[in-house]
Amino acid sequence: MTDRQDNPVGEDALIARYFRPLATHPGAFNLVDDAAILKSSDEDLVVTTDAIVEGVHFFADDPPDTIARKALRVNLSDLASKGATPAGFVLTLALRSAEDAWLAPFARGLGEDADRFGSPLLGGDTVSTPGPLMVSIAAFGRVPAGKMVHRSGAKPGDRLVVTGTIGDAILGLAILNGGAAAAALADNAAASDMLVGRYRVPLPRNAIAPAIREHATAAMDVSDGLAGDLGKLCAASGVTAVIDAPSVPLSGPAARLLASGVVGIEALLSGGDDYEILCAIPENHFDAFSKAAGMAGVMVTPIGTVIAGTSEPKFLDAQGREIQMSRLSFSHF
Amino acid sequence: MTDRQDNPVGEDALIARYFRPLATHPGAFNLVDDAAILKSSDEDLVVTTDAIVEGVHFFADDPPDTIARKALRVNLSDLASKGATPAGFVLTLALRSAEDAWLAPFARGLGEDADRFGSPLLGGDTVSTPGPLMVSIAAFGRVPAGKMVHRSGAKPGDRLVVTGTIGDAILGLAILNGGAAAAALADNAAASDMLVGRYRVPLPRNAIAPAIREHATAAMDVSDGLAGDLGKLCAASGVTAVIDAPSVPLSGPAARLLASGVVGIEALLSGGDDYEILCAIPENHFDAFSKAAGMAGVMVTPIGTVIAGTSEPKFLDAQGREIQMSRLSFSHF
Repeated sequence: MTDRQDNPVGEDALIARYFRPLATHPGAFNLVDDAAILKSSDEDLVVTTDAIVEGVHFFADDPPDTIARKALRVNLSDLASKGATPAGFVLTLALRSAEDAWLAPFARGLGEDADRFGSPLLGGDTVSTPGPLMVSIAAFGRVPAGKMVHRSGAKPGDRLVVTGTIGDAILGLAILNGGAAAAALADNAAASDMLVGRYRVPLPRNAIAPAIREHATAAMDVSDGLAGDLGKLCAASGVTAVIDAPSVPLSGPAARLLASGVVGIEALLSGGDDYEILCAIPENHFDAFSKAAGMAGVMVTPIGTVIAGTSEPKFLDAQGREIQMSRLSFSHF
Repeated sequence: MTDRQDNPVGEDALIARYFRPLATHPGAFNLVDDAAILKSSDEDLVVTTDAIVEGVHFFADDPPDTIARKALRVNLSDLASKGATPAGFVLTLALRSAEDAWLAPFARGLGEDADRFGSPLLGGDTVSTPGPLMVSIAAFGRVPAGKMVHRSGAKPGDRLVVTGTIGDAILGLAILNGGAAAAALADNAAASDMLVGRYRVPLPRNAIAPAIREHATAAMDVSDGLAGDLGKLCAASGVTAVIDAPSVPLSGPAARLLASGVVGIEALLSGGDDYEILCAIPENHFDAFSKAAGMAGVMVTPIGTVIAGTSEPKFLDAQGREIQMSRLSFSHF
């Protein structure tokens, strides 16, 4: 009979080796219990869950640390858009096999991001699957009681604002798929790498969660494409919107690919995986919001206005003509 | 341009049709937001997560409602073993396709169990996968501050107690796999159906969570096999145990299959998927615990004693000889 402490086997050994070092939160109990504890407080607990699947949300040969980061960050992005401060997460990892060469960098990337965003691993489940790798995370955040920012709440007259730049991720995906964007950037590795990086590792905008909470009447993260997600925010708020498409912020490489006709504006506006925040800011809050975002180091750009109505939001071109969108967003089914 | 309210598409339509009716909790916001809210209180929030994968934890042709029930119940079982009262859950559903014939009974079973166990759907994510179906749930429960029951805490002299019966689920799995148990029960549909039912739809013991909280020094749910899980509880508590194997409660069909030699005791003690509670009860609490369990309608059976030591727990046969266990539990890797 061996000493069980020195000779753990199977999934317990896997958890002990790779994930226990990440379980720094006292409520995680070093991952040796069946559940974790989040302490109560006067604040509301915000709960969100998002999964990523090999071959759907990432490529099998993506660097393992980027897969871990993306899985966590898409959830942190939801929390940011709700004005919530990260409090931790639980992980479900479905693996075909347990290989150190994959698990070690995966766990390292996950741990680095957990530290960076103040969202410790609280618990999880590791299961075998005959199929594609899947990472499912449920993440928790805190807001002062009653202060979560909803999709509903946008009012006619509010400015619509997005963080960062739109469309980079869909171009990164196009590059990985070897499309026209890849050919156009064949001699520009820096631009290509930037766009691929934006697809693989989004940057959740948790830095401006307090400003969202203080100033936004409605907010959501842009995960399925700006056009479709704007439609969802407007529908939840019972309003519609007019967007000045040339105002939508693009990165330098994206702007050049658009100008050279390699990609159309519709693809950038309907592409997924941006993980930027779209929010509605009342006119009299806009200056304070912009200033707070600047202090947090996050670029924010007004792109249009909320108006009364129930039709789909309109995107207008530089001549004020409506851009016909045949596809608003990514949908799984 | 169509009215978006009347013509939702893709995953949004799927969520609206099948899962919105389940989102009865006010903090679920009808599943139209990016996150849910669990209100704060003086209690601790207990968090657990477990996933089930087609071909690993269930069969592709299992009735869809049983897949939903199992996914939720394995999580509720964790909460019960921690002494927690269910508060809700979030769902990640990875599907190859969205078919009404599968989704309708899945959602119905999920909703019925959510009602039955007082654990409403708070939110979720539906993703497409080219691979096996997977259901991942993170469930939340509440305990008075500081009162979660841990795996650690068992003390020498405590009685070890299990709820219900052990080994039924592994026999149910054997029947579905067409093994010897299937042949032995070929003319006994009632017994066969009972065992298969125990594999497909475990019964989480939430009814005695308050008694666990009040009386147990340590507890966990038996999901990977009694022998291995007992070893984990003992390791976490820094103790070991002696189990009287003939005392381990078996259902009538399991006892008959054991008596006729169709299955060995080792298989029953190391088989997974029981989802019963294993707990350590101090001698002077045992009567009160038994009475509380009886009031809750849950059978509890003492099976052995916690003793000092760090070796693996021993299982003794009717003659007091140690049963050699070559395999303690199920492990994914």
